[in-house]
Amino acid sequence: MKKNTGKPKSLFLDDANTCISTDLYQLTMIAGYFEHGINHKSTFELFVRDLPERRSYLIAAGLEQAVHYIANISFTAEYVKYLKELPVFKNVSNKFFNYLEDFSFKGDLYAVPEGTVIFANEPIIRVTASMIEAQIIETYLLSIINYQTLIASKASRVVFAADGRKVIDFGTRRAHGPQAGVLAARACYIGGCVGTSNVLAARELGIPPIGTVAHSWIMAYGDEYESFQDFHNVFPDNTVLLIDTYDTIKGAKLATKIGMKLKGVRLDSGNITLLSKRVRRILDEAGLGHVKITASSDLNEYKIAQMLAKGACIDSFGVGTEMVTSKDTPALGGVYKLVEQEIKGKVVPKMKLSKEKETYPSKKQIYRFLNKRGLYKKDIIGLVDEEFDAEELLQPIMKKGKLVYKIPTVKQIQKTVEKNMSRLPKKFKDLNCKTAYPVTISRRLKKVMEKIKSGHIAF
Amino acid sequence: MKKNTGKPKSLFLDDANTCISTDLYQLTMIAGYFEHGINHKSTFELFVRDLPERRSYLIAAGLEQAVHYIANISFTAEYVKYLKELPVFKNVSNKFFNYLEDFSFKGDLYAVPEGTVIFANEPIIRVTASMIEAQIIETYLLSIINYQTLIASKASRVVFAADGRKVIDFGTRRAHGPQAGVLAARACYIGGCVGTSNVLAARELGIPPIGTVAHSWIMAYGDEYESFQDFHNVFPDNTVLLIDTYDTIKGAKLATKIGMKLKGVRLDSGNITLLSKRVRRILDEAGLGHVKITASSDLNEYKIAQMLAKGACIDSFGVGTEMVTSKDTPALGGVYKLVEQEIKGKVVPKMKLSKEKETYPSKKQIYRFLNKRGLYKKDIIGLVDEEFDAEELLQPIMKKGKLVYKIPTVKQIQKTVEKNMSRLPKKFKDLNCKTAYPVTISRRLKKVMEKIKSGHIAF
Repeated sequence: MKKNTGKPKSLFLDDANTCISTDLYQLTMIAGYFEHGINHKSTFELFVRDLPERRSYLIAAGLEQAVHYIANISFTAEYVKYLKELPVFKNVSNKFFNYLEDFSFKGDLYAVPEGTVIFANEPIIRVTASMIEAQIIETYLLSIINYQTLIASKASRVVFAADGRKVIDFGTRRAHGPQAGVLAARACYIGGCVGTSNVLAARELGIPPIGTVAHSWIMAYGDEYESFQDFHNVFPDNTVLLIDTYDTIKGAKLATKIGMKLKGVRLDSGNITLLSKRVRRILDEAGLGHVKITASSDLNEYKIAQMLAKGACIDSFGVGTEMVTSKDTPALGGVYKLVEQEIKGKVVPKMKLSKEKETYPSKKQIYRFLNKRGLYKKDIIGLVDEEFDAEELLQPIMKKGKLVYKIPTVKQIQKTVEKNMSRLPKKFKDLNCKTAYPVTISRRLKKVMEKIKSGHIAF
Repeated sequence: MKKNTGKPKSLFLDDANTCISTDLYQLTMIAGYFEHGINHKSTFELFVRDLPERRSYLIAAGLEQAVHYIANISFTAEYVKYLKELPVFKNVSNKFFNYLEDFSFKGDLYAVPEGTVIFANEPIIRVTASMIEAQIIETYLLSIINYQTLIASKASRVVFAADGRKVIDFGTRRAHGPQAGVLAARACYIGGCVGTSNVLAARELGIPPIGTVAHSWIMAYGDEYESFQDFHNVFPDNTVLLIDTYDTIKGAKLATKIGMKLKGVRLDSGNITLLSKRVRRILDEAGLGHVKITASSDLNEYKIAQMLAKGACIDSFGVGTEMVTSKDTPALGGVYKLVEQEIKGKVVPKMKLSKEKETYPSKKQIYRFLNKRGLYKKDIIGLVDEEFDAEELLQPIMKKGKLVYKIPTVKQIQKTVEKNMSRLPKKFKDLNCKTAYPVTISRRLKKVMEKIKSGHIAF
């Protein structure tokens, strides 16, 4: 335990402390495995048991940060000392702590590329490594993949609802802490947003940073028009004005006085659908047909679809809270389960039998079948060595601890999502999820499960 | 924009990059203020407009990380260069960027101590500084305070529902990214949890790290009892066994064979209320009355209250997803609004007039009145210089950029919450929020608002 130095703590993560950015039981279990010489080659798969409510598909995201973590995990002396002194470890031998000091991940990692459309029970990541190496990474891996996948999926729904109009991530202030804001910006961009208000994410990832102006700017002035002029003065090519501080219609009329260089206006309160039509008319009548209207104010995919159905004149949507917290379904229940072990040269499939939480055993692959028009038709979850006339979604990412995969840029991933979403038939994109995409398991996988259940395979 | 080096990116925050961990418009606005010489002494207040659904109170949290940020914010040459090269800043003078290189926060900060019970519209933080200094910190401040306050409040409900039984944070894997896991662990502990599974949070903050064992441990063995024995072997004083991997009742019976040194068992699936009673009997009949039963599996305050009402024999609850995402209401709408400026020596109150989003002007204080038994009776939000026979909740934290407040440990904050919750009458703790705590605004504050609305004060 660190002593209280009276200095406020940052609670930042870094490459040194991620080794203990995990659940205690991962560390006690690996100590237990070590002490009992249990370190068989083991395979774990990360998947989502059931699609969350109101989701008919997921967009896989977060692999880049997962790989960063796995490629860099190590235990410096400082952290080993901390663990050694925890009472729970008092019966654990020094050998274990020496092992930790030399620890690095030397296993294999397979994953679906970021931006892949996935469904329930489909492995997003497959890890084959010594039991200890595979176990230790569980919690961090889940926390990265669960969140980014949740948000990329939500963003793709919002972008779908916006039907060709632009969507911008404005969510940083409501994300679950500062790092969540950055991760959300990444996932939203992957899901199809055109940019983010988060400058750090923009810089790190090459996402366009986008912003307008806040009410405090307008309120810092006695006069609304003076505030507009002064803003235009400093940002002549980026004059997007917030016009609802006092009265949206009056604000719109004042904004037109900026003239042809006005780039856009933002509506942030009131009946935005109605106001957008009136503001559009005011702009058009002033000869400012090129001026864009941005809307914000607790938007989500449902509201956006409704606004557009009612003929709202909106060119871009600034979406925050609802997108970066995935507010209608704010957690993704990804799990990471042991599916196979090699014991004395023998491959032993593993599965959890408890009724509600049964898992599929063995190393698996997702086989995706396309129809004649190249659209997604159905998936089969099968064993890795099956041969189907289908796309195989899991690809090698790391071999023996080394990266064997070219990490794409977020721009490339966004393109992948665009392409994939165009191949997902429209009925599966319905915001109310009326139709489930067909996913079955292969005959061979079924057989393995039957053998385990009937006791023909020890597990 | 950073070039893609092909190296996977961590997306960690640190003391250098927090300066741009903000919304772009904060940076454009401060550039605008700078260029127009607008840098009056200004006061902003951070508050929550409406309590979220299903919440009748909030527990303020996150001040320590907010203070860390404010005390350390600076712009290194690297970040100034990045901003300078953004096209949006092309008309901004070099003087502004020189100003940024010398930037530090030199203002005053008032806040309610972490662990304070607060309600809608009550200022949690009040910042008085130059307009630029006060503006630049908005987004980061909100992202810290919104999340930790959301989670401390949720945790306090879960702890209330557990009615004296222990609650442990198990949520890291479902929190919104790795840092959210650490921040959640802190907020949950503040809210009354006895510990966390998050080892990094435990180390940084001195919170007890708590863990049992996962299904993968049991599944790594062919034989369930052998897995129990081996675990006990390495952790003789911390043997808490997960007994539901195959069959909870059989698992419980096997666990009793460990004998008197068995510390606890964990139930993670099935009808936990029913199973807990049967398991309790099995343990008691084996003479293991001291062995504790822990329950987990998507628990929340509603389920816990229901389980206990039905007589569940549970000593501690491991709560994850629902607590760390505040799943029933996953975002807190904290805002940060300009309330006052000093212009040429004259104090000018500021308020936003738009109907739905009206704000209260002027520097404010929360006055909390106690009844004869020392319980919370009502709050009045008033001007800072009013005199009431009441507790004044906002306290000085920083003056002229220097910390003037002793940052408490999380243990101390937890004690504060305990004391405060004991002073909040029980009717306001009802999980279904049937009664609203009385909060009004003072006559003097009302007068200021009336004067502004009638145009007697320029604003």
